Amino acid sequence: MNAPDKFTTLLSLTREPFPASHKCVIPGSRPDLFVPVRDVALTNGETVSLYDTSGPYTDPKVEIDVRRGLPDVRGAWVLERNDTESYEGRSHHALDDGAKNEDRDAQRLAELRAGASALQRTPRRAKSGANVTQMHYARRGIVTPEMEYVALRENGKREWMAEYLANEERARRVMGNPMGATIPRIITPEFVRDEVARGRAIIPANINHPEVEPMAIGRNFKVKINANIGNSAVTSSIEEEVEKLVWAIRWGADNVMDLSTGKNIHTTRDWIVRNSPVPIGTVPIYQALEKVGGVAEDLTWEIYRDTLIEQAEQGVDYFTIHAGLRLPFIHLTADRMTGIVSRGGSIMAKWCIAHHKESFLYTHFEDICDIMKAYDVSFSLGDGLRPGSGADANDEAQFAELRTLGELTQIAWKHDVQTMIEGPGHVPMHMIQSNMDEQLKHCHEAPFYTLGPLTIDIAPGYDHIASAIGAAMIGWAGTAMLCYVTPKEHLGLPDRDDVKQGIIAYKIAAHAADVAKGHPGARSRDDALSKARFEFRWQDQFNLGLDPDTAREFHDETLPKDSSKVAHFCSMCGPKFCSMKITQEVREYAAKKGVAEAAAMAEGMEEKSKEFMAGGGEMYIPIRPIA
Amino acid sequence: MNAPDKFTTLLSLTREPFPASHKCVIPGSRPDLFVPVRDVALTNGETVSLYDTSGPYTDPKVEIDVRRGLPDVRGAWVLERNDTESYEGRSHHALDDGAKNEDRDAQRLAELRAGASALQRTPRRAKSGANVTQMHYARRGIVTPEMEYVALRENGKREWMAEYLANEERARRVMGNPMGATIPRIITPEFVRDEVARGRAIIPANINHPEVEPMAIGRNFKVKINANIGNSAVTSSIEEEVEKLVWAIRWGADNVMDLSTGKNIHTTRDWIVRNSPVPIGTVPIYQALEKVGGVAEDLTWEIYRDTLIEQAEQGVDYFTIHAGLRLPFIHLTADRMTGIVSRGGSIMAKWCIAHHKESFLYTHFEDICDIMKAYDVSFSLGDGLRPGSGADANDEAQFAELRTLGELTQIAWKHDVQTMIEGPGHVPMHMIQSNMDEQLKHCHEAPFYTLGPLTIDIAPGYDHIASAIGAAMIGWAGTAMLCYVTPKEHLGLPDRDDVKQGIIAYKIAAHAADVAKGHPGARSRDDALSKARFEFRWQDQFNLGLDPDTAREFHDETLPKDSSKVAHFCSMCGPKFCSMKITQEVREYAAKKGVAEAAAMAEGMEEKSKEFMAGGGEMYIPIRPIA
Repeated sequence: MNAPDKFTTLLSLTREPFPASHKCVIPGSRPDLFVPVRDVALTNGETVSLYDTSGPYTDPKVEIDVRRGLPDVRGAWVLERNDTESYEGRSHHALDDGAKNEDRDAQRLAELRAGASALQRTPRRAKSGANVTQMHYARRGIVTPEMEYVALRENGKREWMAEYLANEERARRVMGNPMGATIPRIITPEFVRDEVARGRAIIPANINHPEVEPMAIGRNFKVKINANIGNSAVTSSIEEEVEKLVWAIRWGADNVMDLSTGKNIHTTRDWIVRNSPVPIGTVPIYQALEKVGGVAEDLTWEIYRDTLIEQAEQGVDYFTIHAGLRLPFIHLTADRMTGIVSRGGSIMAKWCIAHHKESFLYTHFEDICDIMKAYDVSFSLGDGLRPGSGADANDEAQFAELRTLGELTQIAWKHDVQTMIEGPGHVPMHMIQSNMDEQLKHCHEAPFYTLGPLTIDIAPGYDHIASAIGAAMIGWAGTAMLCYVTPKEHLGLPDRDDVKQGIIAYKIAAHAADVAKGHPGARSRDDALSKARFEFRWQDQFNLGLDPDTAREFHDETLPKDSSKVAHFCSMCGPKFCSMKITQEVREYAAKKGVAEAAAMAEGMEEKSKEFMAGGGEMYIPIRPIA
Repeated sequence: MNAPDKFTTLLSLTREPFPASHKCVIPGSRPDLFVPVRDVALTNGETVSLYDTSGPYTDPKVEIDVRRGLPDVRGAWVLERNDTESYEGRSHHALDDGAKNEDRDAQRLAELRAGASALQRTPRRAKSGANVTQMHYARRGIVTPEMEYVALRENGKREWMAEYLANEERARRVMGNPMGATIPRIITPEFVRDEVARGRAIIPANINHPEVEPMAIGRNFKVKINANIGNSAVTSSIEEEVEKLVWAIRWGADNVMDLSTGKNIHTTRDWIVRNSPVPIGTVPIYQALEKVGGVAEDLTWEIYRDTLIEQAEQGVDYFTIHAGLRLPFIHLTADRMTGIVSRGGSIMAKWCIAHHKESFLYTHFEDICDIMKAYDVSFSLGDGLRPGSGADANDEAQFAELRTLGELTQIAWKHDVQTMIEGPGHVPMHMIQSNMDEQLKHCHEAPFYTLGPLTIDIAPGYDHIASAIGAAMIGWAGTAMLCYVTPKEHLGLPDRDDVKQGIIAYKIAAHAADVAKGHPGARSRDDALSKARFEFRWQDQFNLGLDPDTAREFHDETLPKDSSKVAHFCSMCGPKFCSMKITQEVREYAAKKGVAEAAAMAEGMEEKSKEFMAGGGEMYIPIRPIA
């Protein structure tokens, strides 16, 4: 899981709308609830409506100032529940940014912070004794606006369903195999509530992140993807850091994890959360480790706890916590090909062995729950013992931890804390299904959130592909969110293009999973694009794709003229040789001659063929031309 | 299936050996039989031996002159069987190259041909009444040198197996799920003979292609990949055309299809076959159509037959023949989302409807068999009705044709003609397995050769990834060869980098399938690379990868200094934060403290945990630190 760096310095954020697209909203039951979608206008007058993760950035009507942060989406919903209070919060220390007060860097950072003082918010927390998680409300039968938002967002515009179902043969033939998922035709707010109540879905939405556009992670919703970003070694501007987020959500990241390490991480996080329409996740042990100078043995529960509160106050929506890596499991990794490859996992393993003690994340798990439920931070229970190679896949270390994550899930649920489970990693194809089976069995359908998995180990430079294969398969099997892998995995820090490549590969995997599961909203885009392809509507084909820019650019390389965008052939075969063109001629010809006649003739020939085969003694006698 | 163009003009062929690699041979039972492999020397003194498709081009010791062609590999084996004869052969017409004699282009081409007159060979064919196919020999119990070659090539150096099996737990846990394949630990020449005899594998090896390094396509062998190349619009040199082939096999194409259309195709084919160490496939209907000016209705059996003989004499190893697209099936495509998308299929459909006749490929199938067996050209029975979108997957048109291909397979086998079956195309994940099931059921385990399949339709520009997912899955399920898809699929002609991207994506898919099936030779490379990764042997990690150049380049972008190639950390986490480094420290620590002690402690804690859980009434009580 590597975090990107080396973003080119940019003068401004990427804010162009997608081609032929405009932001639209689906209105909810109250005036302050409307869900954005991206409507793509086709050249034949039709419109295709797409799930949109890009937030207000692709809406030219919205003015955005990264020094003030995004407009509030759900602050009022939090307030009206009347179970939270604002409070002074923890004060900021230079150490939170990995600096000492007298550092020149710290001074520079302080200036940057001062220039964006509007991003400093007074935090809120649950009133004493209250529990403000979406799960808590769900279990009390309360349908929150967040749940309604999710329902509308998941549905999108499903009018196409009627058209699809009108072709009975096709609907029967192509409809998916849900592999145990139970996705309804229409997602109701009540359905969302029920899924959250039983722990089968989470809505990561810290009460201190009012800018978030609520989304759900669960096997009965669209498969989601997560992209990782990280701080630059030398922070030059807020824009530069926020652009990484904007770039990731533009291409479809449903969630973003800020995996920053080193300096400036507190302040960078403020910038990111305040400007993020998607849930933000972190791995708090990274920052805690910075606070103790990088020496794992020096970590304490108190420092870790302080870090959780620091980040919860900032609005982080989910925490990766490696609480399932227990002291008794560590020796199980001794014979592994690649030992422990999770950063958080190896830090905790080192701590456990150094102190000869059980992990403080495990022993303090209920204390952590108390923090989580005061802010509605969701657990992403980390797989610190995930395999780092195919050879280590599905071993006892991995599964012992997984079973522990299942136990911890039940404790978290006792506190009504939303929980998902992280999964591998490196797993050959034939071992993927059992990962899902074990997770479902031991973790009681809490959403699974896997890193790939990579199906082979020999593709450095192409691990986004090696892992997209595993991601698609495990997504089909029931994994709710896929953490992306970039081409730079195992090699270096991803740059801007690597991030895009990783995201597109994972959008492919997630969509392939949705189509295979038979998600009722998934196929419409494929069908619209296929139809456009067949009808030579080139612009529509580009615009309906995951990356219109690249599709258009590739086409232009061979046939740059504008006229070829409406040509009834393409560069692969040329005007004489186009199979789609010939098909259309075949259709016209068949229509003229009459399909009935063709069918009758066909039947006659089949009959003849059978006669030949029955009578001739030979297995087969070739049919000679009729005329 | 698009053919590449736009190769940059090159001064010479790509002939650099792979880094740290040298060509080695595995000697066979006779002095003229030795199988090349690529040995990668690791920095720890070990060697990893890899299956190698690149031919003599990566061997600096071999002098290559594209105007003379490659050294003969198996000409003597053909001769000593004493069942073939040389004959004058069909004479070359300007029309074979899509030209008229007086064309300026034709004159220019004639000059080029004259400059490479050494490439013109006297063809051979079976003596009257003889059958010279590998299948024919196999069925008579003859183990040919080609079969022995294949056996040695598939085995490579499997010494690693012993080491692997020494770790019983790992071997049991990780060994694949063959999904019905029966791959022996060691491939014997007799096993190859048996597989070829029963039609479960083919060795595409035209007697007029003595330069070929024999290879097998079958579900009990490594999964193979095919890359497509095509002629340039303006041919500038032999080198330019041959370089496309050299580039494709360098990155791992096991087979190459020459999908040239338009002008110069006969002569280009000569250049390619004479310089190719891998089997070459074609779609003869493309050239036949050129000969009738691109008017499908004007095609005749005689012109097609002449084209088959023309190409068989040149040494083409397999022909795609769309003989299963029968007149009665055409109306089944009328309601499709994307009609008929196969070029060959649409040409034949148009012919059938225009003449109101059954396809001449179907009616003359036994005549075609007679030609195939006289040269040992293998059938690649084309799927002219493959789906062009997920919506059309697995429909009656597709499966009616597939069943017909099964019938034709039995006819081909009656003539001892080697046969494989082409498959889709566009198939969502959940519909992939039934493609394999239907193919196995109706085509009697004849090798399946699929184009992807693409799992979704919304990824123009990234269809190599959308299809690598499907290719890996169907490869695991039993498909023997995967036809690559490049990023330019549906959009334009692939350039040099697109070809490479497509091949690497498909090497990933094929290898993922081999690992999942438990091919005994597959895991060694993964394990060697994982070990190198864990031991911070960066150079070895790069050199064992599918694309050492890109891996090294990506690493250098972040940590360019040579010293970092032996550094015990990497750019993702830096020196303090490296999880693999920490794991090594954990191991040392554990060794010092004693694994036994750790295990005992673990057991004690588990015991305590159980007591807590049993006694406390609570589902769980967190364990407090011991000390």
